[in-house]
Amino acid sequence: MTSEREIPGNRAPTLTDVAKLAGVSVATASKAINGRAEVKAATRVRVLEAAEVLSFAPNALARGLLSGRTGTVGLLTSDLEGRFSIPILMGAEDAFGAGQISVFLCDARGDAIREMHHVRALLSRRVDGLIVVGSRTDARPPLTGNIPVPVVYAYAPSADPDDISITVDNVGGGRLAVDHLLACGRRNIAHITGEASFQAARDRVEGATAALAAADLSLVGDRPYFGSWDESWGRAAARMVVGQHPEVDGIFCGSDQIARGVLETLRDLGRDVPGSISVLGFDNWEAIAAHSRPRLTSIDMNLQRLGTIAGQRLFAAIDGVSLPSEEFPGRLVMRESTVPVG
Amino acid sequence: MTSEREIPGNRAPTLTDVAKLAGVSVATASKAINGRAEVKAATRVRVLEAAEVLSFAPNALARGLLSGRTGTVGLLTSDLEGRFSIPILMGAEDAFGAGQISVFLCDARGDAIREMHHVRALLSRRVDGLIVVGSRTDARPPLTGNIPVPVVYAYAPSADPDDISITVDNVGGGRLAVDHLLACGRRNIAHITGEASFQAARDRVEGATAALAAADLSLVGDRPYFGSWDESWGRAAARMVVGQHPEVDGIFCGSDQIARGVLETLRDLGRDVPGSISVLGFDNWEAIAAHSRPRLTSIDMNLQRLGTIAGQRLFAAIDGVSLPSEEFPGRLVMRESTVPVG
Repeated sequence: MTSEREIPGNRAPTLTDVAKLAGVSVATASKAINGRAEVKAATRVRVLEAAEVLSFAPNALARGLLSGRTGTVGLLTSDLEGRFSIPILMGAEDAFGAGQISVFLCDARGDAIREMHHVRALLSRRVDGLIVVGSRTDARPPLTGNIPVPVVYAYAPSADPDDISITVDNVGGGRLAVDHLLACGRRNIAHITGEASFQAARDRVEGATAALAAADLSLVGDRPYFGSWDESWGRAAARMVVGQHPEVDGIFCGSDQIARGVLETLRDLGRDVPGSISVLGFDNWEAIAAHSRPRLTSIDMNLQRLGTIAGQRLFAAIDGVSLPSEEFPGRLVMRESTVPVG
Repeated sequence: MTSEREIPGNRAPTLTDVAKLAGVSVATASKAINGRAEVKAATRVRVLEAAEVLSFAPNALARGLLSGRTGTVGLLTSDLEGRFSIPILMGAEDAFGAGQISVFLCDARGDAIREMHHVRALLSRRVDGLIVVGSRTDARPPLTGNIPVPVVYAYAPSADPDDISITVDNVGGGRLAVDHLLACGRRNIAHITGEASFQAARDRVEGATAALAAADLSLVGDRPYFGSWDESWGRAAARMVVGQHPEVDGIFCGSDQIARGVLETLRDLGRDVPGSISVLGFDNWEAIAAHSRPRLTSIDMNLQRLGTIAGQRLFAAIDGVSLPSEEFPGRLVMRESTVPVG
C-alpha cells in the first residue's frame, strides 16, 4: 500500500506530488514555493511543509527562497569538539541543495561575551540569518541586543517560546530505545545514564519509563542510574547493576561512551552480549559504536536532518514565513549488541 | 638555570624581554611590533618571532597587527568531525587574545567545487585572510583563482613551497614516541599504524625507525604494520604481532583508536600493560585515550598552538611581513599505559 506521503517507485518528487499532499492546485503550490504574494501565509506553510516531507527538489525551493539573497548563514556553537555542530552545519548547508548556501561556523565556547563578539562579527559581514546550536539540550536564553536577521535555535531550544527552535525529541528517543529492547524479548531493563542536571538525561528517563509502564514494567532497581557521560561510569555502573540485579537482561545507556564501558564490564564478567543481555547506546557516534565488541546498537538523533530543517526554517523566516518550532525524532541504528537470540 | 627563553618566576613577558631575546633595543622592538616603517623587515621578523617564543602580550601585538582591521578570518576545512579543525580554530582565534578575532569556519568536505564556493562567500564578506586546514597531512594544491587576501595553510602544507604552511612534525612525533618507549626500558618495539597512503603514517614510521636506529635497534618484524586507523585493525594486528613475535615489549600505535584496539587484545591475551608491554598512541584524543584500560599515553600534536601560530602568521602577512613556514613539534602526554615497572 502506498500512503499519501510516499512517491511510487523511487522517482524524484514533483510539484504535482507536493500540491497533492498539500491539498492545493499545482498553480498555487508553484506560487507558494516561489514566494508570490497572492498566496495566503497558511497555504504557503502547508505547501512548504509538504515540500519538506517529500524532500521536494531543493533547487526549485532554493530558487524561490534564495532569489536575490546571498545565501550565507552564521552558525553559533559552543561545541568544543564539533561532534554535534558539524553535522548540523552540513545539514543546513544542504537545505537547498549543494552550492546554494555557505554556513560560517563560530565557536563561542559557552562564553556569552565571546558569543556577542561573534554575533557582531557575523552581522557586520551581512549574513542572512543565524542558527544557534546549543552544546546540550537544556533551553538557553535567546540572543540579546538588536539582531536584524532571523534566528533559529537548533539542538538546544530558546527559552523564549516565540522563537523558532528545532530540537531533538529525547523523550521519544528514550521510548524508542526501550521499545526496541522490549521487542527483543527483554523484560528486566536497566538505564545507565549521564548527569541528572542535563535535560537530555531526564527526558530520556521519562521516555524509557513511559515505554516500560505501557508494558506494565518498571526500571530494574526502580530508578535510572545517573552518573557521568563517559566509559568509566559505564563500567562501574554495570558492575553495580549486575551485582545487585543479576536478572537484568537489557541495559539502555544514555550515551555510546557509557554503553562502551558497560560492554567491557559485561565481557569481564563473562555475560554474553547479545545472548544473555542486550545493550543499547545513544548518539550513534560512529567512532565508538561501530568499533565496540559487539558493535553497538544506538539511537541516532539525525543531526544532519535537524540542520536541514533549521536551514529551511531560517530561509522561510527570512522570506517572512514563520514556520513552527519542531521536535525531531531519532531513529534506531541496529548493530549486533541487541540482536535477539534463541 | 634560566635560559634566555625563560622569564624568571611566572610574570608576564614584557617588551624588554622581547627586545632582549631579539637582540634589539626596546625602541626598535616597539616599532617592529607596531608595524612602523622604519624597521627593516628582517629585524621585524626577529622581533615577532621573539614575541611568539615568549607568548608576549597578545593584546599589544594585536594593537599593532590588527589596528584598523576587522579581525575576521575564514577557516576552510574538510574535517567531517571537527576533531582537528575546532582546536585549530580556537588557537587561531586566541592568536591575539580573546575578543580580537572571529574565525568563520566553512566545511568543504573534501570537494574542490564546494571549497571555491566557500572561498567566494568568505571573500565577498571581506574576511582579512584565510586559513586552509587539510584533513590529512599530505601536501594539497594551493587555492586557485584570484585570492586578494593572504592565505596560511595549516596541518596540511600547500604543495607550493612559496606559500606559508604551518604543519605538524610527524617525523619528530614518531621519534618522540619511540624515544619514550626506549626510555621506559623497552627494546622490542613494534609499530602498528594506519594506511600507508597517508604521509602522516609514513612520516611517523620514518621517525620511529630513526630513533630505533640511533639505539642500534630495528622494528619488531623489521617493518611497520600498515592497515587502517581504527580499533578493529589494532585488535587484529596486535594478535598477529604478539603471535609472531612474543618478545615484543613495546607497541607504538599510529592513532589512539588503533592503540585502543591493541590494549583490548593484550587484555584478552592476558598480557600485562604496562607491566610486560608498553603501549603508546597518537593524537591524544581525550575521549579515547583518557578512558581506555589502562589509560593511554599518547603524542599530542598541539593543534591549538598550531592554530595560534597560523593566526599570527596570517596577520603578519596581512601586515606585509612574510614569516617562514614552520613544522610544529608534538608533545608526549603520559598516562598509565607506559609507566615503567620494576
